[in-house]
Amino acid sequence: MFFHKQELQYKASPAKPDVLQARRMQELLGGQYGEITVAMQYMFQGWNIHVPGKYRDMIFGIGAEEVGHVEMLAVMIAQLLEKAPVEQAEDAISRDPAVAAVIGGMDVQHAIVAGAGARPVDSMGNPWSGSYVTASGNLLADFHANAAAEMQGRVQATRVFHATDDKGVRDLLSFMIARDTMHQNQWLAAAAELQAEGHEELPVPSNFPQRLEDSSVAHQYQNFSDGQQAREGSWASGPAPDGKGQFSYTDGPQDHGVVPLPPPTTPDPRFYGTTGKPNLVEKVVGTVKDAL
Amino acid sequence: MFFHKQELQYKASPAKPDVLQARRMQELLGGQYGEITVAMQYMFQGWNIHVPGKYRDMIFGIGAEEVGHVEMLAVMIAQLLEKAPVEQAEDAISRDPAVAAVIGGMDVQHAIVAGAGARPVDSMGNPWSGSYVTASGNLLADFHANAAAEMQGRVQATRVFHATDDKGVRDLLSFMIARDTMHQNQWLAAAAELQAEGHEELPVPSNFPQRLEDSSVAHQYQNFSDGQQAREGSWASGPAPDGKGQFSYTDGPQDHGVVPLPPPTTPDPRFYGTTGKPNLVEKVVGTVKDAL
Amino acid sequence: MFFHKQELQYKASPAKPDVLQARRMQELLGGQYGEITVAMQYMFQGWNIHVPGKYRDMIFGIGAEEVGHVEMLAVMIAQLLEKAPVEQAEDAISRDPAVAAVIGGMDVQHAIVAGAGARPVDSMGNPWSGSYVTASGNLLADFHANAAAEMQGRVQATRVFHATDDKGVRDLLSFMIARDTMHQNQWLAAAAELQAEGHEELPVPSNFPQRLEDSSVAHQYQNFSDGQQAREGSWASGPAPDGKGQFSYTDGPQDHGVVPLPPPTTPDPRFYGTTGKPNLVEKVVGTVKDAL
Amino acid sequence: MFFHKQELQYKASPAKPDVLQARRMQELLGGQYGEITVAMQYMFQGWNIHVPGKYRDMIFGIGAEEVGHVEMLAVMIAQLLEKAPVEQAEDAISRDPAVAAVIGGMDVQHAIVAGAGARPVDSMGNPWSGSYVTASGNLLADFHANAAAEMQGRVQATRVFHATDDKGVRDLLSFMIARDTMHQNQWLAAAAELQAEGHEELPVPSNFPQRLEDSSVAHQYQNFSDGQQAREGSWASGPAPDGKGQFSYTDGPQDHGVVPLPPPTTPDPRFYGTTGKPNLVEKVVGTVKDAL
Amino acid sequence: MFFHKQELQYKASPAKPDVLQARRMQELLGGQYGEITVAMQYMFQGWNIHVPGKYRDMIFGIGAEEVGHVEMLAVMIAQLLEKAPVEQAEDAISRDPAVAAVIGGMDVQHAIVAGAGARPVDSMGNPWSGSYVTASGNLLADFHANAAAEMQGRVQATRVFHATDDKGVRDLLSFMIARDTMHQNQWLAAAAELQAEGHEELPVPSNFPQRLEDSSVAHQYQNFSDGQQAREGSWASGPAPDGKGQFSYTDGPQDHGVVPLPPPTTPDPRFYGTTGKPNLVEKVVGTVKDAL
Amino acid sequence: MFFHKQELQYKASPAKPDVLQARRMQELLGGQYGEITVAMQYMFQGWNIHVPGKYRDMIFGIGAEEVGHVEMLAVMIAQLLEKAPVEQAEDAISRDPAVAAVIGGMDVQHAIVAGAGARPVDSMGNPWSGSYVTASGNLLADFHANAAAEMQGRVQATRVFHATDDKGVRDLLSFMIARDTMHQNQWLAAAAELQAEGHEELPVPSNFPQRLEDSSVAHQYQNFSDGQQAREGSWASGPAPDGKGQFSYTDGPQDHGVVPLPPPTTPDPRFYGTTGKPNLVEKVVGTVKDAL
Repeated sequence: MFFHKQELQYKASPAKPDVLQARRMQELLGGQYGEITVAMQYMFQGWNIHVPGKYRDMIFGIGAEEVGHVEMLAVMIAQLLEKAPVEQAEDAISRDPAVAAVIGGMDVQHAIVAGAGARPVDSMGNPWSGSYVTASGNLLADFHANAAAEMQGRVQATRVFHATDDKGVRDLLSFMIARDTMHQNQWLAAAAELQAEGHEELPVPSNFPQRLEDSSVAHQYQNFSDGQQAREGSWASGPAPDGKGQFSYTDGPQDHGVVPLPPPTTPDPRFYGTTGKPNLVEKVVGTVKDAL
Repeated sequence: MFFHKQELQYKASPAKPDVLQARRMQELLGGQYGEITVAMQYMFQGWNIHVPGKYRDMIFGIGAEEVGHVEMLAVMIAQLLEKAPVEQAEDAISRDPAVAAVIGGMDVQHAIVAGAGARPVDSMGNPWSGSYVTASGNLLADFHANAAAEMQGRVQATRVFHATDDKGVRDLLSFMIARDTMHQNQWLAAAAELQAEGHEELPVPSNFPQRLEDSSVAHQYQNFSDGQQAREGSWASGPAPDGKGQFSYTDGPQDHGVVPLPPPTTPDPRFYGTTGKPNLVEKVVGTVKDAL
Repeated sequence: MFFHKQELQYKASPAKPDVLQARRMQELLGGQYGEITVAMQYMFQGWNIHVPGKYRDMIFGIGAEEVGHVEMLAVMIAQLLEKAPVEQAEDAISRDPAVAAVIGGMDVQHAIVAGAGARPVDSMGNPWSGSYVTASGNLLADFHANAAAEMQGRVQATRVFHATDDKGVRDLLSFMIARDTMHQNQWLAAAAELQAEGHEELPVPSNFPQRLEDSSVAHQYQNFSDGQQAREGSWASGPAPDGKGQFSYTDGPQDHGVVPLPPPTTPDPRFYGTTGKPNLVEKVVGTVKDAL
Repeated sequence: MFFHKQELQYKASPAKPDVLQARRMQELLGGQYGEITVAMQYMFQGWNIHVPGKYRDMIFGIGAEEVGHVEMLAVMIAQLLEKAPVEQAEDAISRDPAVAAVIGGMDVQHAIVAGAGARPVDSMGNPWSGSYVTASGNLLADFHANAAAEMQGRVQATRVFHATDDKGVRDLLSFMIARDTMHQNQWLAAAAELQAEGHEELPVPSNFPQRLEDSSVAHQYQNFSDGQQAREGSWASGPAPDGKGQFSYTDGPQDHGVVPLPPPTTPDPRFYGTTGKPNLVEKVVGTVKDAL
Repeated sequence: MFFHKQELQYKASPAKPDVLQARRMQELLGGQYGEITVAMQYMFQGWNIHVPGKYRDMIFGIGAEEVGHVEMLAVMIAQLLEKAPVEQAEDAISRDPAVAAVIGGMDVQHAIVAGAGARPVDSMGNPWSGSYVTASGNLLADFHANAAAEMQGRVQATRVFHATDDKGVRDLLSFMIARDTMHQNQWLAAAAELQAEGHEELPVPSNFPQRLEDSSVAHQYQNFSDGQQAREGSWASGPAPDGKGQFSYTDGPQDHGVVPLPPPTTPDPRFYGTTGKPNLVEKVVGTVKDAL
Repeated sequence: MFFHKQELQYKASPAKPDVLQARRMQELLGGQYGEITVAMQYMFQGWNIHVPGKYRDMIFGIGAEEVGHVEMLAVMIAQLLEKAPVEQAEDAISRDPAVAAVIGGMDVQHAIVAGAGARPVDSMGNPWSGSYVTASGNLLADFHANAAAEMQGRVQATRVFHATDDKGVRDLLSFMIARDTMHQNQWLAAAAELQAEGHEELPVPSNFPQRLEDSSVAHQYQNFSDGQQAREGSWASGPAPDGKGQFSYTDGPQDHGVVPLPPPTTPDPRFYGTTGKPNLVEKVVGTVKDAL
């Protein structure tokens, strides 16, 4: 169960309205790596988890926090939109480039659809999508995805931070960027702990029997480009991070197969695909088959 | 530039057709973590990169390989579909549960739309989406995303592996799972190397000035759930992975703010939102404003 | 069957071109509650209806009107775009904020994709989606959805009305807002009539046997927030609108269940999920299972 | 802020696993009118609200409950999936139609992507979309949308109820259907109260100045179909629900306009659209313009 | 304006219900090349057209017909769904593979969402999308797109035809396939006429000044694959269809450029991208810039 | 397999950065008819093809070229974004309309998400979708779709060409427009050759037995609009392009059917749809059925 408390985790009031910044904040709220994504992602991981204990507790502990982050952003956006223009005052536009920027750059649906409120969309107006969520049931894979999501989220938040000098907005972002720092660290620590406790190793999933994969290419860099510097990297020689092999380098892949020739039996003519024979033949076959 | 060679990186021929397995393979081809995703992701990272040298070479080297993986899967799927049923033969269905499973479980568009061919969709028929791609310009954030993507991809491939006992399909998957092993290792090695060379540190992005974030909460676990075991984890005490702080634990967040009261100036009445006053007042105001 | 008549239900000519207003009008044409939505929604309700007579006639009568509304908006938008800028004349931009607003704010695809024409998208460029449509087969549920859609649509149209002072655009919107008034009334009247004639009651669907739902919570407000004023509302005491119970209030839900512990039988190890046991055990199990 | 409590609002354990029912339950979790939709919808309405007091408290009180409903469904689905088939055991399929139904009808991503867990998608695998959410800032419009959503949701839940005879699943649905009953009533009561207190009237938005809409058609049924029974309805004569006019009926719309002829000034030739003149003329014009 | 007549263009009644065929018919109704697509496509082309006369009349003449085709399919689908199973009768499934096929293969939302009715989706449940529509303002380009759409549509309809032997369904498809034949011919004829009358030539758009394109490669086949037979085609030598050049063949493209090296001025450090320099340098720069 | 060469097919360097043009170029990269679409479309056609030889070679030859076009556009866009504004410098905006245009018109995610890099989206920010791809297995249908795609693509590129006077951008577009010219010609030539060699005829698919379609309407123009000029076109009389019939014209369709009345057996009451009988009857029936 979830309970709501009518306080925010951190104050979320801008110094003054700014509809352009409101639009940018939508990325942090409803973008691919926005707060809805991490909230949903952690909650689905928690609901699908098969084990009790500290990992499960931690997932719910952070999941609920993230819903509150959505709230802080939404509350902030609504205030940034307080002066969202209702009309396109041509005089004002003609006189003032700042007005022109607002008229040109605002999220049009902030005004028409939400009446100066936040929306579950990103900064370009794409609705948030369930396809952003990652919850595989394999905790090590998922914790890495979580760490990666927090990194992308923090990168985006720092960019949005610099886009404004509003004291209130920067203050909130200063708090949220710090939480991203924490969560980035948190998932990296949890991923390390999972491995230390023997729940999972690299490569993920580690309990797929090794004999079932083609070990001859499991640690081999195959270069499909004409650049020559890739062989200088630590991924081209030396021990691999999973501790299960030595990296090697091969310049160009070994040929293993060919595009198969068309199979001896042609596809069913009733698919009406092109099969390389003048269609007269097929027409007869088709007509006959159909008549049966 | 990209060049095509009419050979496959690995042979891709099933022992026999299997339209249900064809559908499952679509997840590896066109799903959130399928081969189209990683191909596109690495290529966009390469096109947006600002630095020459080994990282850039490596990104293109693997990016081109992944396009070839899309090809192997597509070629395999087309062959698995060779006996895709054109008709719903009621007699056959009534007699044979295996036919019933095929009629019930096949990707309907494999037959109707593609004429027994592969499609750029996942196993539930969702078209591949550009929103799956991550390319932020920050290589450490992106390499972590890449490693996470390879982990999810490998987990999915192992599940699809067990769904069939077709020798040809398992053979291809055995090769592809090994490549996932390599690529998982590759990105982890590259991420480590980026840090070792001082390009980037944790937390990402590391050159966001630390004084601009609220350091009081940057390493603090805040528990928003009623579980008590989360404090036992390595994320609740001890040094954080970024080496820049000690984890701490707090049971319940400190209150920092409140949901702001409605601002003294009400929104423009021409948004026709609800403002808490009987609308008679607004109607007068609106009419007057409008008349001006 | 549908027939087209080369007249519009109402004149649709702007006083002068305005590419920014063209973009706003797209919301009314192709947005979540735009005219395509209601046209499609009413038509699908009509096609799926199981009963002849006045409701069915009425649904088709309004459905066809709404296709004509799409037409009026499209014709208007094409004219508003007549002066859509082909080039980004830097001189003009530098001199004139109004030009800057246009360059910044226009729907880029209006120019590049449609060559100064309307598109089946909303004001942020999201393509219209079949997922906006509601047609459940239960007419009372659907008529309420229709009334709600007309309300949202009218709210949006009034906002778009104020965004321009173009006489021609306002004239068309004045007509369309009046039609929204009619249709809002129409669906509310139809919903009332359905109930008066005994086809359906509240709660919808009314013929789900009452004994099959948990009547102990069917009229009980459960407060999951810490606000205390919700108990003052008419939804917290007194008779409920469905006439089948008295509202009651409870501050905090009664606990009925717990998150289930992991089931005694662990999931199939071949899902490679995390199961709380060091994976060595599983690896053995998996290898053995696989070998069989 | 949101807090999580590790109990469920109601017990959510099936009598036995059933992957087909798991798929159906996804509609109630992640469909257009599933629990994610209402949770998000109410929360966004709450975050965008401009007024303190009972409406706002109520919105948060129910919003948090709905997040808990997502949880109950997710937990239930994960248990229903416990025996999700990892392999396509041909022998078993060939012998048993029930196995064939499962192989054919399961959500393929439940196995491959989630490892036997719930996902933020509907029963056909479409990811949940932010475009399902309605939050306009006009509470009367939004409360009607909420009531309509609860009706659709309840209709769907009753259908899913009959699809199974699992005691545990029916038990949970019996609880959730009752909550839908409550919430349907709740929003209807709240909508009535908003009007009774004078915040808003019909038609929504009521404070759009009536003189700005074309009152001649604001209560007129216009029949665009050839059915003749629509005039028998209460929407074709008598007083309208908004109390502001009498319904009237007209058989066929009055012609108000025509599709405008092509404007005297042709579009910019650099759009390369078709303009009705042989393109030689344009080519010359274009070349000249371009040369300047 | 559009008017509805309560007759169908052709009878649409199946011999008996068939929920699997209902799902297949959804592709023809709501797929990428289904009837909603062509209806919308032709209507948008008509609304955006700049010229009066026969082309415009024809576009509206066929556009309205296509809306009627959506209707015929929807009416057919609703009847095919008449026996859609409400419950998952385990006994019946266990005994009868045909029931298993239905339970496994039906569109789950046909039952849960539409209550045995048609939906604006394709055969895999993807909602119809406005992104399927093509209307560029250039009639020759659009007529080619229309002809191509009718071809895809007819191919799909013939495949769906063979999937059933229901006399009623085949009868309707027999009619619709014939209309596809007509419309395929119609658009090809119209495209030829546009050229014959000098409105447009190949390549489209023909009035783009030829001197503005790089004529050295405008008729040159460049082979980016290692196949050698492509040079045998009529696209590799001889006159091109546009009558404006001779095809030539080149085995491998000429190198024209290189991937640009990183520009001398690095991107703004406040994007926190990776720039190839250890981040210490940037951190100083960033801190200084930020401090200013 | 695909190989990458670190050169571009053509130089792709702008004279100077221009974030607005960067956004327009996204349409050519990631739009419905952008380079990702044609690259994917040709590759899927190649992977699904059933015949070896010149067509297959040609498809791969052009498919690989198109991936390189994506690359050229991405590289160009990244350079156009080099000066993408990090901050919203209010002073600069207030002074300079050109800055206002940039702030208003840029793709917000170019800055926040990609850190001044290209993205797999169109000019309005919609992510590229697999639903743009056409690959039916019928080569004549597909080659027509390819020609149509190249026409739309060339129309769009010419529009984007005029939007800038940047020498470098125009230079690249001049090259790409010429390649569009080639590819438009190429697919038209290939379509003609397929027919000349007897693989396929019009109407597509030509081997669908003609006796299975309703030949009475296969070449008949049916006018569903009130325009009278459509009968003047070549599609209303004379020989049809498929050489299999004479066009005819009929003013208004012949009535073939009617909307079916509700079937004698009502739908299962457990769908809780509206069936035209007061629900009391159903309620009894439902209760009884349920009790059994």
